[in-house]
Amino acid sequence: MEGEPTLRLRVFDLNCWAIRYLSKRRQERIQLIGDTLCQEGFDLVLLQEVWSEQDYSDLKGKLAGCYPFSHYFRSGVIGSGLCVFSRFPILDTLLYQYSLNGYPYMLQHGDWFCGKSVGLVIMKISGIVFNVYVTHLHAEYCRDKDAYLPHRLVQAWELAQFIRHTSKAADVVLLGGDLNMHPEDVGIRLLRGWTGLRDAFAEATHFEGCKNGCTLVPDNCFTDKSEMLPFPLGIRIDYILYKAISSFTVKCEELKTTTGPAPGMDIPFSDHEAVMATLHIQRQGQPACATLGTADLALADVVTEARTEVGVGLRAAQRQRYSWGRMAVLALLLLLLQAAAALGTLAGLGTEQPFPKLSFCLLAFLALGILFLATGLHLFHTMEVKILHGTEDQMWMALRALQERP
Amino acid sequence: MEGEPTLRLRVFDLNCWAIRYLSKRRQERIQLIGDTLCQEGFDLVLLQEVWSEQDYSDLKGKLAGCYPFSHYFRSGVIGSGLCVFSRFPILDTLLYQYSLNGYPYMLQHGDWFCGKSVGLVIMKISGIVFNVYVTHLHAEYCRDKDAYLPHRLVQAWELAQFIRHTSKAADVVLLGGDLNMHPEDVGIRLLRGWTGLRDAFAEATHFEGCKNGCTLVPDNCFTDKSEMLPFPLGIRIDYILYKAISSFTVKCEELKTTTGPAPGMDIPFSDHEAVMATLHIQRQGQPACATLGTADLALADVVTEARTEVGVGLRAAQRQRYSWGRMAVLALLLLLLQAAAALGTLAGLGTEQPFPKLSFCLLAFLALGILFLATGLHLFHTMEVKILHGTEDQMWMALRALQERP
Repeated sequence: MEGEPTLRLRVFDLNCWAIRYLSKRRQERIQLIGDTLCQEGFDLVLLQEVWSEQDYSDLKGKLAGCYPFSHYFRSGVIGSGLCVFSRFPILDTLLYQYSLNGYPYMLQHGDWFCGKSVGLVIMKISGIVFNVYVTHLHAEYCRDKDAYLPHRLVQAWELAQFIRHTSKAADVVLLGGDLNMHPEDVGIRLLRGWTGLRDAFAEATHFEGCKNGCTLVPDNCFTDKSEMLPFPLGIRIDYILYKAISSFTVKCEELKTTTGPAPGMDIPFSDHEAVMATLHIQRQGQPACATLGTADLALADVVTEARTEVGVGLRAAQRQRYSWGRMAVLALLLLLLQAAAALGTLAGLGTEQPFPKLSFCLLAFLALGILFLATGLHLFHTMEVKILHGTEDQMWMALRALQERP
Repeated sequence: MEGEPTLRLRVFDLNCWAIRYLSKRRQERIQLIGDTLCQEGFDLVLLQEVWSEQDYSDLKGKLAGCYPFSHYFRSGVIGSGLCVFSRFPILDTLLYQYSLNGYPYMLQHGDWFCGKSVGLVIMKISGIVFNVYVTHLHAEYCRDKDAYLPHRLVQAWELAQFIRHTSKAADVVLLGGDLNMHPEDVGIRLLRGWTGLRDAFAEATHFEGCKNGCTLVPDNCFTDKSEMLPFPLGIRIDYILYKAISSFTVKCEELKTTTGPAPGMDIPFSDHEAVMATLHIQRQGQPACATLGTADLALADVVTEARTEVGVGLRAAQRQRYSWGRMAVLALLLLLLQAAAALGTLAGLGTEQPFPKLSFCLLAFLALGILFLATGLHLFHTMEVKILHGTEDQMWMALRALQERP
């Protein structure tokens, strides 16, 4: 490819659904993914939900020949699940962990424990500097009453800001990942509007795969059919986005998704379909004009809409902080009352009645437990309030900048 | 200043020590700081430890006339304490919260609750793009046996990486803050070596202030004299660092520190001395050659030294994770034993002896408390291990890049 005036880059993106002990036929699928990646020979592979470092090491071993460069991003309790395999040298990396990512007490959802992040790898291919981002945002568990929407919006905003601030020296920006947002959602519009990234599916000259580019489809044997009832065709939540920054143009020649079982196998790679893009990068005479600024008014509307949702989240977090704070104070008062009663008994008051030791202890432990729990949750929601408030501020500053732009 | 070929920029940096209810004569000092900033008319003011948003609002109100632009960075439970006041418009901001920042159970130190971060503000002054960073790293409580060294090194590394990745489109980079590191410490050498930042104190043509540029001096009436015993002259932990990236040069014409009480007052601004730099920025014909690369071998040594310390921290964190995990398992076993004993009693075994309800309950609650606590700490140290491991990896990648550089 070296020396050619244009560059053709084949990118593979997949949410691997590789949760140890929980994901069905995990090892078999990881093997299958490794085999396919070796056969297909992509240039760049962006994976999510590779939660186990062992799985990463297995893949790394298997792919060493065809993808000699790789990086695994570590964060959170379980990990970020993000990793990158590449045919080209990785020059530098950076991880940005999102400030908000659900709640530690929502054990059934578990997103908090994953330390959701965006990983950046920098590469130089044929003299072109690529900033490649891989990410996975907080899941949406109930679309009608999505309690995590403010958190996902903060993540989308931080992702957009991180890309804007770190990609200024790049020629081409690529983002791949499971964004857990439908194409028309405010978070996607915010991300695309604020960064100028283009959607490979929408721009592709040739498309092949699940209808509408869906990546979570009812036909996949691992998806939960009941969750897909409102979306008989499936949903599109896995994306490859791109833009050229300096004097380059990027075009998506072809976009493909997998459609269920891998060729010659009875199972698909994952509960998500993979997205595969062939990008065509060309140097052009004049620097590309900034994508931003063409639709500032529409963008201002999107930022306003996102800011409203963040505001809703802020007020909910403030209520939670207040409730848990009040609960902690009540538990403390109960403990103080108990201490007074115990001191009274020690001082010889009320000796005519036996002291109910057992109930006393039970109550004291209960109050103590509630005190610790409520204090912890009060602190947690205080942090949540700070971040939501900070994001509101930043979005306000963005709106001002958009309005002041000539 | 507009249109001039050179720019003179006056920067003020101070750790304000403004902890509500704890810092002595806080409100008086905040007023004093505000008055002085108004009189002196700096171009840029970087403050740390402004923990209370009320203090920030008071300052903002007072400084509105002379510093019309400002930003407060929100994070953590208490806040980041970081804020910026400027005579020039702030175009954009970004906050990066450090992945590691002490331990929540070290209540007496409290760093964990502050959400220590680096804040970035972008400004354009006379057509020159400034990336201004303000930060505050984890404190050093015991220099001989510094348990927080690995965390501070991770922060110094993340700070360096954040600056490198976000400053590529800047003409001039400025960093101000309380780095909690002595000038010869490995963290400072790592930060300076990896970013190419220069120390205003070392570069200043003219210096005036405390000997050796110290910012924590025994003469200050608010400093803890016993802590300063090994350092009779004081220590220098507050810095202004800078570099020019594109075709500009930056020179430090003058560096000053305050020396105790403010003029005409009986108290100093804070327990730290303020650092004030006058920088001279000039456009030059040819782009400045990259500062990095001139001393790659020395830099490789620094990165290796830092990586060794991070490795020490990693092994300590792994031991902690293991200990708390084992404790949680033991508490769970005890609870299971108790459940078996209770079931045995319910089934009518051992009825000849009275069942010790009170001790049984006490023990069960104790085991339950230990189980929750130990599980929480196990998870916390698991996250710590992930971050330290990830930093080790990144540093290894940096070393490889340094060695491969022609």
